[in-house]
Amino acid sequence: MKRDVLKQAAEQFGTPCYVYDLDAIVQRVHLLRTLFDNEFQISYAIKANPNAALMNALNPVIDTFDASSFAEVKRALAAGMPAGRVSFSGPAKRPTEITGAVDAGLGELVIETLQEARTASDHARSLGRRQPCLVRLNPLKVPRKFGASMAGTPSQFGIDEEDMETVLPHIAKLDGLELIGFHIYSGTNCLDAEAIADNFGIFIDIFRKAQDITGIRPSLLIFGSGFGVPYLQDEKELDHDRLRELVLPLVADLRKDPIFAETRLTLELGRWLVAPFGWLLTRVISAKTSRGSEFRACDAGFNNHLAACGMMGSVFRRNWRYINLSNPDGIPALYTLVGPLCTTIDRLAVDVDLAEVRVDDLLAIPQSGAYGLTASPTRFISHPDPREIVLRQGKATDVSEALLNHWA
Amino acid sequence: MKRDVLKQAAEQFGTPCYVYDLDAIVQRVHLLRTLFDNEFQISYAIKANPNAALMNALNPVIDTFDASSFAEVKRALAAGMPAGRVSFSGPAKRPTEITGAVDAGLGELVIETLQEARTASDHARSLGRRQPCLVRLNPLKVPRKFGASMAGTPSQFGIDEEDMETVLPHIAKLDGLELIGFHIYSGTNCLDAEAIADNFGIFIDIFRKAQDITGIRPSLLIFGSGFGVPYLQDEKELDHDRLRELVLPLVADLRKDPIFAETRLTLELGRWLVAPFGWLLTRVISAKTSRGSEFRACDAGFNNHLAACGMMGSVFRRNWRYINLSNPDGIPALYTLVGPLCTTIDRLAVDVDLAEVRVDDLLAIPQSGAYGLTASPTRFISHPDPREIVLRQGKATDVSEALLNHWA
Repeated sequence: MKRDVLKQAAEQFGTPCYVYDLDAIVQRVHLLRTLFDNEFQISYAIKANPNAALMNALNPVIDTFDASSFAEVKRALAAGMPAGRVSFSGPAKRPTEITGAVDAGLGELVIETLQEARTASDHARSLGRRQPCLVRLNPLKVPRKFGASMAGTPSQFGIDEEDMETVLPHIAKLDGLELIGFHIYSGTNCLDAEAIADNFGIFIDIFRKAQDITGIRPSLLIFGSGFGVPYLQDEKELDHDRLRELVLPLVADLRKDPIFAETRLTLELGRWLVAPFGWLLTRVISAKTSRGSEFRACDAGFNNHLAACGMMGSVFRRNWRYINLSNPDGIPALYTLVGPLCTTIDRLAVDVDLAEVRVDDLLAIPQSGAYGLTASPTRFISHPDPREIVLRQGKATDVSEALLNHWA
Repeated sequence: MKRDVLKQAAEQFGTPCYVYDLDAIVQRVHLLRTLFDNEFQISYAIKANPNAALMNALNPVIDTFDASSFAEVKRALAAGMPAGRVSFSGPAKRPTEITGAVDAGLGELVIETLQEARTASDHARSLGRRQPCLVRLNPLKVPRKFGASMAGTPSQFGIDEEDMETVLPHIAKLDGLELIGFHIYSGTNCLDAEAIADNFGIFIDIFRKAQDITGIRPSLLIFGSGFGVPYLQDEKELDHDRLRELVLPLVADLRKDPIFAETRLTLELGRWLVAPFGWLLTRVISAKTSRGSEFRACDAGFNNHLAACGMMGSVFRRNWRYINLSNPDGIPALYTLVGPLCTTIDRLAVDVDLAEVRVDDLLAIPQSGAYGLTASPTRFISHPDPREIVLRQGKATDVSEALLNHWA
């Protein structure tokens, strides 16, 4: 990203604002297809960033959208995706969401509990139809080096691996459902190629076991990717070439089994596709030296970016990367960056090493294309909503959705 | 609160919803006045809960509103508070917010930095006026037992106690400002009467020192109260009688000094006034036994109540109190309550002891009148916004502000 483009966006649209580079995001999809020799289809997890313009850009280049709420289903349809290429997953689907998904003719309902399966089956049967579904499975094992891991320990997600034998046959024989395959997502934000490949190996073992229990010939298997991005200063990019080397043989091996020879394999992911091509831009409002620390108060805080402030599931707050766009050649020093909220917990970064930060400087928080605006408590203290700006073929456009806060 | 009233609100307006008992909140204000023999005026910190209906109810019974953003200033004015009884504090006021506050004729601008003082003074002078202001002071000491403490360590807030000697004279002599007093808020959510009284003693020492440095006769001193409420299962209510016993002698002693005999003393607080009379109501959507744990998935998660999920500045997640309104006499057991979000971090409570929780049961999260809806990332995964319901003279009314999410 050229720094000038970000600076210009801030000038034109004001701060704080999120900027998403849609061209780069589309390129990232193509990179992913090539990386795995088109062995995987690509499903975008809407929750990562549901911005309508971003979804419109992704729609022609990805295969499916995965929704985690019925409102996200509507967003997928609004972006132009046929219902047959939308999946719906999530641990607490309201009964009306399940029947709504059946009514809409979604390609895949991802079943998390037997009760969900029954609700969907009953409704589909009442319409004289069979709803295609996947069952989400919850592994006993997940390799280390995953961010939030959901395997082995008790979990709200899916059917536990050790319960497959008792539960899957019940789901497979429900009249109103067509069990077309399985879904696993057991860990997120992993930067280690070996760990991801090991995890895919675990997925494949479980998929085989589930196939064996149900006797179906799966038409679809979803691999929750867990591909990570480097947020912190000392983190390194995932080694994509190594990942290719490790994952392709697993796929080749699976394909040897005639039962899986024609199965569609899908990578479900959000963060890895969009995070690297989003920035939160914030301007420095005031400066203060307090007890030996250099404070800079910015116009964005945890109200605008909960994750960057370490408040989104991190046990310890660690500094994200920051860029001083206004003064890149300034003399580096340590700064504590705080937001505009009247609370001590509103800290973007503590003693972060940055080129001299002056009042009015423009700062960028990279890796902010996923779990940014919509994952933040934007109403807190009623500050103005950050705008959302997209870059497409050199043109910057404000694509913010209706503002909540008519007071700001 | 009668359980039936909450159950009826959930039936009538759906879940998730916040319910605020406005009559009880108004009563709480009267209790506070009586508790300290009317020695303190009362300023409501809007950030705790900016709901317009709640502010309308508070407006006739409190003395001032404290805003932490210019949008909150507008909310105060919309609630009918005269500008002269609105204060504006916060560490990163945009220059346009400062000039806006002067233009609006706010009663008190709370100055956090010398730069803010200069901006305000210049603008007021250009209008031929003097803007009344308080200087926020940041103590070196704060007693233990405060929730988030902001004293002693480096801080973005106010003028550090040890810098008063050098900075206060500069502010005091700015032509466009009228320095009318001082403001301290150095800790929050304290349940220990001794610690609060000790803290007030520290405030008074600093107020005296600041008076001595500036030579002004303060017309107003603001005591950031830090009065806490018991969120966790093992926490006890603040001992209000003990607090009275300890605080009134401090006030009497201050009053003996002729300089402070007529000074208006104000308690600034939000949480203590409104938290105890708000509930988040959520319905149980699904049940799952996973690896020995009983999971119940609810229709509210950290998208609706970040603080209850331990994601609002807590280092360790601990269970809040929960009530099973539908089945109060059920056999108690341990439950892990999760929300509807497709992420493992969406946990309301882990192994919490509750009367048997069944699918469709209605649960209440008490102490949710402050830092609830507006402090939560309601857009995350596009679930429907919780409604806000107020109870007034036995009548329940939906007072939700414009919904953000037209997809849900």
